Amino acid sequence: MDILSIDAMSDGEIAEILSRAAQFFAGNRGRRSAERLHGKIVFNLFYENSTRTAMSFATAAQRLGAAAISLSVERSSVQKGETLEDTARTLNAMRPDALVMRHRENGAPAAVALIMEAPVLNAGDGTNEHPTQALLDAAAIQHRFGSIEGLKVAICGDIRHSRVARSNAKLLPRLGAEVRLAGPPGLMPEGVPARSVDEAIAGSDVVMMLRVQRERLEEELGDGPGEYLARYGLTRERLGTAAPTAAVMHPGPMNRGVEIDSAIADDPERSLITLQVEMGVAVRMACLELVVGSAAR
Amino acid sequence: MDILSIDAMSDGEIAEILSRAAQFFAGNRGRRSAERLHGKIVFNLFYENSTRTAMSFATAAQRLGAAAISLSVERSSVQKGETLEDTARTLNAMRPDALVMRHRENGAPAAVALIMEAPVLNAGDGTNEHPTQALLDAAAIQHRFGSIEGLKVAICGDIRHSRVARSNAKLLPRLGAEVRLAGPPGLMPEGVPARSVDEAIAGSDVVMMLRVQRERLEEELGDGPGEYLARYGLTRERLGTAAPTAAVMHPGPMNRGVEIDSAIADDPERSLITLQVEMGVAVRMACLELVVGSAAR
Amino acid sequence: MDILSIDAMSDGEIAEILSRAAQFFAGNRGRRSAERLHGKIVFNLFYENSTRTAMSFATAAQRLGAAAISLSVERSSVQKGETLEDTARTLNAMRPDALVMRHRENGAPAAVALIMEAPVLNAGDGTNEHPTQALLDAAAIQHRFGSIEGLKVAICGDIRHSRVARSNAKLLPRLGAEVRLAGPPGLMPEGVPARSVDEAIAGSDVVMMLRVQRERLEEELGDGPGEYLARYGLTRERLGTAAPTAAVMHPGPMNRGVEIDSAIADDPERSLITLQVEMGVAVRMACLELVVGSAAR
Repeated sequence: MDILSIDAMSDGEIAEILSRAAQFFAGNRGRRSAERLHGKIVFNLFYENSTRTAMSFATAAQRLGAAAISLSVERSSVQKGETLEDTARTLNAMRPDALVMRHRENGAPAAVALIMEAPVLNAGDGTNEHPTQALLDAAAIQHRFGSIEGLKVAICGDIRHSRVARSNAKLLPRLGAEVRLAGPPGLMPEGVPARSVDEAIAGSDVVMMLRVQRERLEEELGDGPGEYLARYGLTRERLGTAAPTAAVMHPGPMNRGVEIDSAIADDPERSLITLQVEMGVAVRMACLELVVGSAAR
Repeated sequence: MDILSIDAMSDGEIAEILSRAAQFFAGNRGRRSAERLHGKIVFNLFYENSTRTAMSFATAAQRLGAAAISLSVERSSVQKGETLEDTARTLNAMRPDALVMRHRENGAPAAVALIMEAPVLNAGDGTNEHPTQALLDAAAIQHRFGSIEGLKVAICGDIRHSRVARSNAKLLPRLGAEVRLAGPPGLMPEGVPARSVDEAIAGSDVVMMLRVQRERLEEELGDGPGEYLARYGLTRERLGTAAPTAAVMHPGPMNRGVEIDSAIADDPERSLITLQVEMGVAVRMACLELVVGSAAR
Repeated sequence: MDILSIDAMSDGEIAEILSRAAQFFAGNRGRRSAERLHGKIVFNLFYENSTRTAMSFATAAQRLGAAAISLSVERSSVQKGETLEDTARTLNAMRPDALVMRHRENGAPAAVALIMEAPVLNAGDGTNEHPTQALLDAAAIQHRFGSIEGLKVAICGDIRHSRVARSNAKLLPRLGAEVRLAGPPGLMPEGVPARSVDEAIAGSDVVMMLRVQRERLEEELGDGPGEYLARYGLTRERLGTAAPTAAVMHPGPMNRGVEIDSAIADDPERSLITLQVEMGVAVRMACLELVVGSAAR
């Protein structure tokens, strides 16, 4: 099986990943223990810059005893005009046990998965999906609240360009949450009813803020950072309208003082932001174990 | 021993590599089994961009249980003006068990090998040689035809700049093949008799097409991609003049519709292109095992 | 414990590292033996280009049986405007067993270490410190002379910008050496008494030459390479004024014919330059073993 998009995953698979991730997290906080994937080789191909996701997947692979072969391929064969399908055939012929792939183009990992015999894990494709991010967000919420059922989750910011928002908007409702998407009018996807950030946050149990590109700030919004914070960001005031126990999330990297007030990001009572990163390794361990294990059967 | 050029290898070494590669390929399709190089460290230094060769060598090292330490060194000490010899002394002093090296300059791996005590494997140097590519091509041909003896192999395209052509033109005749080099007049090396692509392909058992740089297409040939295909590329028509069982090869990355008709590249009856990649891992396992094993004795 | 600067290390820690490095060096010349750090994960983050130091740390980690996850992060999240502290929180949440870090900014590894729970090893920060370089220099001197006590060590060149000079100027006197810093007047730090290179070298037991940036040569000194050599570099003549058994060192990469006469660099009687590199792996093994081992207790 692949992990390409939330829609393509069954409820059983999602539940298994969340439960296994919780075990990895709780048992040893993700530290290497069993070497369930000893001798396996995981290709880690990033066609877009990434520190956090690339390191997280490599760490997850190593903790399971697999070898991660990582390549940052911004300037390699791709440039030479090889088609994505030919790259997939080439990678497949090297017989890795799994391929983790981030790509600028929507659907690139899915196109590659049609060719690869080994499982493909989408580490973010264009503005489409970032399924392991949604899974780690769900795992972090579950860790905090015990259950996701019935929670109100506000996701605020540049919804239009966010693969994180897209994957969460698919996953969290399946786990029983109500998702409220909100952002600057120009940064909402077509067909999604405009809702103000204020409305979305009021009464929410979880407030997930998205990174806004600084270029978009100036070009599309005509705003400075402070103006964005005042109009669309997570301020103390807005957080005060959320549920009293509301948790704050951000997929990172954060623009402090732009989409989120800096003190809120650091508030240990509220912020799940580092928990998200830690849960990320555990979730990716669970994903790799599931897909490589199932391929081996 | 090093693997620097075809000429520097004995018939016995070539035979051992081909035979061992066939075992790796057949036994487990190159998947990790014995950990013959457990605890060994292979340096993977690429002074030129590469996805396929870098991943292939890293995969081969890992499958043998060795650790691959890979570095893409386009912009590191090299830039700082250190001589190649000093880089070699530095790498040698770190005591790796083998050094895989790709470099822009002809002869760079050989110059480094004069200094390194560990074996050096040339992963492509300028327009000079790419010996493991020729070995994997030979392994793929042998896998397809049982033996290379007596086969006619056409190698077509930018012969002048191709280290793949140069290594194959040395290796395949030693294994009993007749090699026919052909390409656009401006892209043939000096001293090689001009032969048309049509003449080379007619009656051949293997047709190996080389990648043409798009820059050369326009600047040197004054051709568009379609024109190149018509004049020098592998079309159905030209392939029809080859032996009825003729196999098609390409070292990749391919320019579909330029040097090769896209449908031919995908024809499972004809194309050995993905077999070449798969054999690549097996051949590099055989090479690493041979040179590191012999160093240990 | 971290290894951030020489001042932050106790005499006992320094002695332990030097003694353990000598064992690693002597016993098996740094080759993998015991797998003291099996299952551990070392993050190798280089925010500045490096071949030698990055490979050296990765090799040291692998020789101890740890997995090195290396990332060259010149163009990743950093660019996206994340603060260094947030990067540190992110890395910490992935729970590596150690973090090796090189950074353009003075103090960056120390800032990160305030947040990381795992040990942080400074692999060079701006113009501040490069403690493992000083430790390997000390280990090389000790290997050559038996003891550092009482030796006169001239360090010559661009002292102002050299983190190598800064770390050595702190470490070597603690081990009993007299350190003499000298260089072109424009390249001396403020507050350090101007001393000519001739004065520094005369009677010295060790002459350590520093790399001069070619840009500085022309812009700040108005000199060509040959002029620099004549005025401030290590020539046969100047070396003739040192102690008869004087050893020559250079942290690399070298500009031959600029800061050092090429024949001197290659003189096996005098030059410790490749010994420094080899000792580098041994010292980094000792550092990793010490800090990761102490974290585990």
